[in-house]
Amino acid sequence: MKRNIGAVPALYPCPVVVVGAMVDGKPSWTLAAHAGTVAHSHLMVSLVKAHYINKGIRENRELSFNVVDESWLKKADRMGVISANRTDKSEAFSYSIGENGAPVIDDAKVSIECEVDGNYEFENFDNFICRIQATYADDTVLNADGKIDYHVFRPVLFEFPTYEYFVTGEAVGKCGRMNG
Amino acid sequence: MKRNIGAVPALYPCPVVVVGAMVDGKPSWTLAAHAGTVAHSHLMVSLVKAHYINKGIRENRELSFNVVDESWLKKADRMGVISANRTDKSEAFSYSIGENGAPVIDDAKVSIECEVDGNYEFENFDNFICRIQATYADDTVLNADGKIDYHVFRPVLFEFPTYEYFVTGEAVGKCGRMNG
Repeated sequence: MKRNIGAVPALYPCPVVVVGAMVDGKPSWTLAAHAGTVAHSHLMVSLVKAHYINKGIRENRELSFNVVDESWLKKADRMGVISANRTDKSEAFSYSIGENGAPVIDDAKVSIECEVDGNYEFENFDNFICRIQATYADDTVLNADGKIDYHVFRPVLFEFPTYEYFVTGEAVGKCGRMNG
Repeated sequence: MKRNIGAVPALYPCPVVVVGAMVDGKPSWTLAAHAGTVAHSHLMVSLVKAHYINKGIRENRELSFNVVDESWLKKADRMGVISANRTDKSEAFSYSIGENGAPVIDDAKVSIECEVDGNYEFENFDNFICRIQATYADDTVLNADGKIDYHVFRPVLFEFPTYEYFVTGEAVGKCGRMNG
């Protein structure tokens, strides 16, 4: 039987990303999981306004979503523990500058570079609506058709209720083909 | 080495839900995965405007997110194949009416009932910003603290690049605790 456990978020587990942006000429980073795809062209990410990185995202309107896998989870997790308001995060990762100016993490096998198109602000959150400009993927995670292969690339997923990380598990079927 | 594979969405895999709403006095349903958490109080879901269900969501401003697991994946998948513009979906699921008026799928072990707070429309999509009103969880997926236990509850995840479903895999650590 189901019961009402309160007005709690429960759309989990979802991919963990490290968001990157330039702030005052240096890269900064933060850990996020409250994000999603909007239309087929945009991503949304929800970040508490007090984050140091929000200033850079607002000013430069460029950011990257670096999809976390287990190989660099420890480094990614640290970006959710330390605050760039107190500790310089600019040397936390080896990075490249994307074609549109956002810092992109070299460890990440999939990174998405975006331009801020809008901000659906409320409460103490910036909810950035971001147009996808470029998706960078490592050759090792692409299939023969040049598409990301999630049998090989296994993103880490987050859930808020007990604050644990899970990995992507096994394939269980093709979307739209489960009924023969 | 990473290369630019184009401006393609790549924030995957992410939870699959069946969205439910009343349309002209009867429940209707659609499959969605382009959704995410906004602030700590809201969900966003991105639905092509042509969907039949959008009319009901716009009129009644009430909907449910029913998180899919493998036990009812076939039924859920069908909601993405058939169109309610042509085929009546009102009898697709056994359902209950939530405390706020949205139809909630009995098969779903976790369902989130929401009120539409806004719509960040663009292109041919309604991107509903939905305030969480109630989260319903089955006793069998709750831990001793009354929180959803993702060691037990294993949502199905979707990825757009090759249109496959994956299950939630194993736990790999605690968020914020990966560095000792």
